[in-house]
Amino acid sequence: MASGWFYLTCLVLGSLGSMSVLFTAYWMQYWRGGFAWDGSTHMFNWHPVLMVTGMVVLYGAASLVYRLPQSWVGPKLPWKFLHAGLHLMAFIFTVVGLVAVFEFHSHENIANLYSLHSWLGITTVILFACQWVLGFAVFLLPWASLWLRSLLKPIHVFFGASILTLSVASVISGINEKLIFSLKDPGKPYSSLPPEAVFANSTGLLVLAFGLLVLYILLASSWKRPEPGSLTDRQLLLQRESGSQPFPVTYVPVTVRQSLGPW
Amino acid sequence: MASGWFYLTCLVLGSLGSMSVLFTAYWMQYWRGGFAWDGSTHMFNWHPVLMVTGMVVLYGAASLVYRLPQSWVGPKLPWKFLHAGLHLMAFIFTVVGLVAVFEFHSHENIANLYSLHSWLGITTVILFACQWVLGFAVFLLPWASLWLRSLLKPIHVFFGASILTLSVASVISGINEKLIFSLKDPGKPYSSLPPEAVFANSTGLLVLAFGLLVLYILLASSWKRPEPGSLTDRQLLLQRESGSQPFPVTYVPVTVRQSLGPW
Repeated sequence: MASGWFYLTCLVLGSLGSMSVLFTAYWMQYWRGGFAWDGSTHMFNWHPVLMVTGMVVLYGAASLVYRLPQSWVGPKLPWKFLHAGLHLMAFIFTVVGLVAVFEFHSHENIANLYSLHSWLGITTVILFACQWVLGFAVFLLPWASLWLRSLLKPIHVFFGASILTLSVASVISGINEKLIFSLKDPGKPYSSLPPEAVFANSTGLLVLAFGLLVLYILLASSWKRPEPGSLTDRQLLLQRESGSQPFPVTYVPVTVRQSLGPW
Repeated sequence: MASGWFYLTCLVLGSLGSMSVLFTAYWMQYWRGGFAWDGSTHMFNWHPVLMVTGMVVLYGAASLVYRLPQSWVGPKLPWKFLHAGLHLMAFIFTVVGLVAVFEFHSHENIANLYSLHSWLGITTVILFACQWVLGFAVFLLPWASLWLRSLLKPIHVFFGASILTLSVASVISGINEKLIFSLKDPGKPYSSLPPEAVFANSTGLLVLAFGLLVLYILLASSWKRPEPGSLTDRQLLLQRESGSQPFPVTYVPVTVRQSLGPW
């Protein structure tokens, strides 16, 4: 039942993620003149699509690798490679998305990195780069001790979730900024909510819903990879399916607390 | 030691929260002409200050009530009242902050609720209202069963953290939007990063840092109120300080998992 809910949630997540990317691409194609790689505003149009794809959707999917019950049994190394590989792919999309906006600014003589959107965005990408390099060095290369890995794991997880939060905030401010800059026709200003504004605002809310659902799956305790020493129904089921022996049961001391009153 | 870290983190949090409010107020006072309640742009200036104070700083503080080790022992009801009371105060600030912007728009014939910032902001406030009413009905009124409370608690916690995330994203897009609308002087446009832009962008990053730190404290497992049946060093210390007897120790069965490979 828990597994059923997990996969249903993943289905909703996949739909939200696909719709986020498709809606952003459709916005750029239908209302903003489509795509090119020539320094023009059509080159800028790659920026929102690549950032939503890389920094939100691929990043979100990469973050959830260890929530797949299949990753809980057997060797962890292949899942680590998948986690790092998907994040690397997300990072490549992100860098190309940044190149698109910097080249456009350079071609059109527009200043770089002045808005809060750009400050937040570039901070997020720098944090992402640091997080990837540190994650690779500590969790994939074989030199780090288990003690160091245990120490850094909660920090890695927290920064992972934070970077996604910052990405979503960057996307929201970016869509808002793009609409303010673009919808200046006095006959159909942003404030009159023309179809493009409704569509792009809705796209922003879709990205937000995707981000929140990733954070939910990431933080829901029953969907976390269990720490050594504990085992869940889902994992027992997987073990049984793979034909292994039942786990031995042992006893550990715990302290029992007096009632703290109802909550 | 763990308690020391907690209080140090709270000190940093208090500083970030105070600075967020003071910086927003200073921005409005020094660069945007100060405050009034007359439908003019000076009335609008209450909006950012009240939203940062209510939806982010007070909301964040209210969320952390159960992370205070003092709340872990003794009856929980007074802490519930504090949690609900602080959130109610945050909501009142928020509503007055909304009145400020709606009255300004009405006075100046500006359309309401068209930008993505406003869509996100109003969604966040509606979710906050639902969360407060549901929280009050289920966790403060005495009718709900323990089963229902246990079922709804993780949802309440997740939506609590999500609403803070949405608030911070609203603030970021709001500051960005306000600067784009205001800094239009061709001699000192936003893109030339005049002092006001640097100051307001920095204020946005401060609010963001505050929000992330609240989420960190909220999610750090060692700072959570322990579930009945478990007890931490911090709580044992508190119990000993309050003069009560040591807790009895009992043994519960747990399953032991084979190694899943190194981390």
